[in-house]
Amino acid sequence: MDKSALQKGRAYAAQNLTPNLEEILSERYDDLVPGMSESLIEWGYGRHYCREGLDAKTRQICTVAALTVLGGHTAPQLKINIEHALKSGASKKEIAEAIWQMAVYGGLPAAINGLNSAKEVFDAQKT
Amino acid sequence: MDKSALQKGRAYAAQNLTPNLEEILSERYDDLVPGMSESLIEWGYGRHYCREGLDAKTRQICTVAALTVLGGHTAPQLKINIEHALKSGASKKEIAEAIWQMAVYGGLPAAINGLNSAKEVFDAQKT
Amino acid sequence: MDKSALQKGRAYAAQNLTPNLEEILSERYDDLVPGMSESLIEWGYGRHYCREGLDAKTRQICTVAALTVLGGHTAPQLKINIEHALKSGASKKEIAEAIWQMAVYGGLPAAINGLNSAKEVFDAQKT
Amino acid sequence: MDKSALQKGRAYAAQNLTPNLEEILSERYDDLVPGMSESLIEWGYGRHYCREGLDAKTRQICTVAALTVLGGHTAPQLKINIEHALKSGASKKEIAEAIWQMAVYGGLPAAINGLNSAKEVFDAQKT
Amino acid sequence: MDKSALQKGRAYAAQNLTPNLEEILSERYDDLVPGMSESLIEWGYGRHYCREGLDAKTRQICTVAALTVLGGHTAPQLKINIEHALKSGASKKEIAEAIWQMAVYGGLPAAINGLNSAKEVFDAQKT
Amino acid sequence: MDKSALQKGRAYAAQNLTPNLEEILSERYDDLVPGMSESLIEWGYGRHYCREGLDAKTRQICTVAALTVLGGHTAPQLKINIEHALKSGASKKEIAEAIWQMAVYGGLPAAINGLNSAKEVFDAQKT
Repeated sequence: MDKSALQKGRAYAAQNLTPNLEEILSERYDDLVPGMSESLIEWGYGRHYCREGLDAKTRQICTVAALTVLGGHTAPQLKINIEHALKSGASKKEIAEAIWQMAVYGGLPAAINGLNSAKEVFDAQKT
Repeated sequence: MDKSALQKGRAYAAQNLTPNLEEILSERYDDLVPGMSESLIEWGYGRHYCREGLDAKTRQICTVAALTVLGGHTAPQLKINIEHALKSGASKKEIAEAIWQMAVYGGLPAAINGLNSAKEVFDAQKT
Repeated sequence: MDKSALQKGRAYAAQNLTPNLEEILSERYDDLVPGMSESLIEWGYGRHYCREGLDAKTRQICTVAALTVLGGHTAPQLKINIEHALKSGASKKEIAEAIWQMAVYGGLPAAINGLNSAKEVFDAQKT
Repeated sequence: MDKSALQKGRAYAAQNLTPNLEEILSERYDDLVPGMSESLIEWGYGRHYCREGLDAKTRQICTVAALTVLGGHTAPQLKINIEHALKSGASKKEIAEAIWQMAVYGGLPAAINGLNSAKEVFDAQKT
Repeated sequence: MDKSALQKGRAYAAQNLTPNLEEILSERYDDLVPGMSESLIEWGYGRHYCREGLDAKTRQICTVAALTVLGGHTAPQLKINIEHALKSGASKKEIAEAIWQMAVYGGLPAAINGLNSAKEVFDAQKT
Repeated sequence: MDKSALQKGRAYAAQNLTPNLEEILSERYDDLVPGMSESLIEWGYGRHYCREGLDAKTRQICTVAALTVLGGHTAPQLKINIEHALKSGASKKEIAEAIWQMAVYGGLPAAINGLNSAKEVFDAQKT
């Protein structure tokens, strides 16, 4: 590996998602958990999203599906990842379809809570 | 809707997955729960997989991701859906990547159990 | 089957629960997920609640128990189903008992969050 | 309270479920966790199943529903409680219906794993 | 056992946690579920926290870890137990570390929601 | 940081747990998911277990508690971490107590399945 996982994760997040994501996390969490922001970028983005073998858009749609079945208590993370899915090229339609399909696997309550999160993100972007 | 959801689900399952899926389910469950097989085909396939707006391959990869984070106790369903994902055009690589990424959202144990299921399916197909 | 599952579900929801349930769902979700309201009525009510073999009141109490152990993130659905359980003839006592018993299977936090939801529903009905 | 919760739990388990349940638990777990069997009987049966306000049969059906949505990893407990539900007067039909309905709330995989557990219990009783 | 589990639980809660914990619970829940407060003190504290073999501080840190992986929907209970962990001698540092480590087992969303709960408790104590 | 997280994780696993853990993982998973073993060592051990602020023994007991409430489907990981807890200086007593306490938070089925896993590990070490 030419670049470290941390370097790759930083580049991925900056180019594709939110340029100052690590700073936002650092300001919020590093005082309590030193190195948390760096560790999250390395693991989540350097070690997963910038891997080969599955395109970023499909990865993000999978994340939306998974956070939906995990239940409404991950709503903050679901909303962030719906935004990331849009940035990765997924349409609102594709995102809504992936969420609704989860009714089959995680039950109706999880899917409905997921749709509610999607509506909040989509509505916020209209204004 | 020209065709009913049940008719559409039957056509989808027969063409894309397992021709006699409804029969297999019926033989196993309809004695205990009358109409279970019909209901599953209508809801799962007629009402979800054959919807527009998200391609079947991505739908199946999302299902694999979701069953991974739901935990190893859905291993039987995960293995069936890994087979369905292959039939929908997903490569082994794409499936393995979607599973491993779930370590970020559902934790390492869920992801490792998911990889173990994938290995079982892939190994069984080699023989 | 003389009537389709969709027709049976519509009749069940209208007579026993909320006359305009499908409309409420349609207005909120069908723009994002075409056919969602119809599909939910067909599956949830046509394919489940109006089945034979278990009375509607017990079905609703089971749903309250299940949503309790699934955790507080399904609180919106739990509250709706507590209302539906009352409409199906369950007493407040029976509902509270079913929730509290879940402490044994889902742990104290899930049961306490369930009781909090019940209190909210019962208090709202007093006013 | 005239009798302690422990005394009431012991009487309930002996009369309604398995006469030597506490002994079975004690032999298996009390060496590792002193007092575990007594504590389980007190909490589970003395503090819950023998409460007033909800009949024992409905309590057991609720437990079957809850263990179904909690997922297949509680299969050993689900099977024991299916047996307890039968002893409490629930029919096989009622048990199967409560399990299958959980497809709506916990998803199809949980419901199917629940039906598989029920089939195992019912089949074992035929022989 | 010289003292009953209920007596031991009452003494533990009064000395180590919140002197009037049973009263608070009773006022909130006993009308709906008679005996709930007594039962919770007996089971949670009499039957668990005042057991031998593991010190109270480690027990409380384990509880914080467990409520973190169970997900953000147990946030009210997590916050109470973070307070109880502080009262049992755990430092803020130890609590934050136990929560963050759960990213490995329950995924990043659960750990981040756990840290958010810890920040709320720690911030409230500063004022 | 003088040493990278990967280097620190490798040193931690080799000294405290299983000298060839990375090799075992690599042989099993790296063909399917290139770099999986390295990534797991870096994240799990380099980024978590060798952090300051909470001793290794308490970290391992927390992991045992968390895997218990996550449910029996993580039994393979629970058993490995019970072994790791023993290697980190926890007694069998402490491990059993941490597991049984989880009955309060994750329900009796999760705690009982956890005790069963502990018994398997402890029994295997006797022979």
